[in-house]
Amino acid sequence: MSSAPADTTVPTKPWLSLGGREFHSRLILGIEQYTDATLVSEVLRAAGADVFITTFDLEQTRPSLLMSDLDETVGLDDYVWIGTTSFARSREDALLTARRLRESYGIHIMKLDVRPSDNFPHNAQTVTAAAELVAEGFDVLPFILPDPDTAAALEQAGCAAIRLMASPVASARGVVDERAVRETMAAVSVPVILEGGLGTPAQVVRAMELGADAVLVNTAIAQAPQPAVLAASMRHAVLAGRLAVDQGLVGPLAP
Amino acid sequence: MSSAPADTTVPTKPWLSLGGREFHSRLILGIEQYTDATLVSEVLRAAGADVFITTFDLEQTRPSLLMSDLDETVGLDDYVWIGTTSFARSREDALLTARRLRESYGIHIMKLDVRPSDNFPHNAQTVTAAAELVAEGFDVLPFILPDPDTAAALEQAGCAAIRLMASPVASARGVVDERAVRETMAAVSVPVILEGGLGTPAQVVRAMELGADAVLVNTAIAQAPQPAVLAASMRHAVLAGRLAVDQGLVGPLAP
Repeated sequence: MSSAPADTTVPTKPWLSLGGREFHSRLILGIEQYTDATLVSEVLRAAGADVFITTFDLEQTRPSLLMSDLDETVGLDDYVWIGTTSFARSREDALLTARRLRESYGIHIMKLDVRPSDNFPHNAQTVTAAAELVAEGFDVLPFILPDPDTAAALEQAGCAAIRLMASPVASARGVVDERAVRETMAAVSVPVILEGGLGTPAQVVRAMELGADAVLVNTAIAQAPQPAVLAASMRHAVLAGRLAVDQGLVGPLAP
Repeated sequence: MSSAPADTTVPTKPWLSLGGREFHSRLILGIEQYTDATLVSEVLRAAGADVFITTFDLEQTRPSLLMSDLDETVGLDDYVWIGTTSFARSREDALLTARRLRESYGIHIMKLDVRPSDNFPHNAQTVTAAAELVAEGFDVLPFILPDPDTAAALEQAGCAAIRLMASPVASARGVVDERAVRETMAAVSVPVILEGGLGTPAQVVRAMELGADAVLVNTAIAQAPQPAVLAASMRHAVLAGRLAVDQGLVGPLAP
């Protein structure tokens, strides 16, 4: 009885559409931590991802893959391209990175991170940077600490979706403040992505149960012994959570 | 990029073999709560189950499906048959149910429940009943509250696997005492099934992360608006948890 899961598991409608590109998979992967293009390809396929995220490291302090290598190995045309400013320490660096990504690759969908202290986004600087990027014609996906007012301001500024920090990046603590996340979700009508510190599939399912439209997982997969296996695990976790939400099943909030 | 999950997700080795029958799926469903044979068939297929559980209600106080209807609709030959004593309130009733299931259907694998107060197993009575059933030639899967000594006694008595209560049956509280579960698991070398109160996929993944060889889910699926959809959710949850365990990924224990 080990046949494929029922058809009920295949998402039919995209949860986000931007400039004619549709987002079906609710699992988004960061790939900044990889140095092997073949591994990136395996991980994206095992995750069922339909998004490819790339960036510039303005200070060139971190290893990065060549786009030419990736294109040959990963088949980049199959993916929606998104830029990220995840290495940016300030509003200025974030804007610079976004503009350079558009100039170089024509990328207009921007995962906006302004993280002065690496693991925490700066909400106020993010709002300012988001407004500027929207004015410049970008589709902006900003990353913030859960806060209803900040999220509402970002939606007001024209952001396409809001990314909320579950717990500090790479902490593997899951959704630490479930109430703050729920209240922030309730403050906006655009899709919400939960991200940061999602280290185990149970934490990913819980994020989906809380009502996330999608999750972004990075370190847990990149640092697994076999990243493609953990990517498959996270894919199942996202499907498990989403199907439960479809059934109206949400566990009680943690205190 | 919505192709089927990677091959990594298909279990290759059975987690339990009894009398020549192999258990591959790590998701076991109770079906005592169903009154529609078609629904049972859909749920078992969506769950990827390879076990079919049946019982007698000695007092005939609950509705039950006719085996003839089930055989026609479900295709019972595809499944490993297990009997359950889940309606038994005492050691005597449990023994009577088990014997009658073997006489009627030739079932020799017995899910042994002795639950005087419905939602809690009685550890001491379960040990006594398990020893008697083993002596009579049954393969016994006893259900107990997490307790290392009781689990060790059951393994000593020859039980094939141990089922541990995660939280009270139908409570949807997940694994309440993670430390007790881990310590009990460490006390035995036979497979351990977590069961009872697993109400959401996040709770199921967590049970798998803690090292369960399999989980048994009943009420959450039976009472969902569309049981087959929630069965698919739980199937994904089990796969997500198992793949993470294969990667050595276990979150820190709850306090």
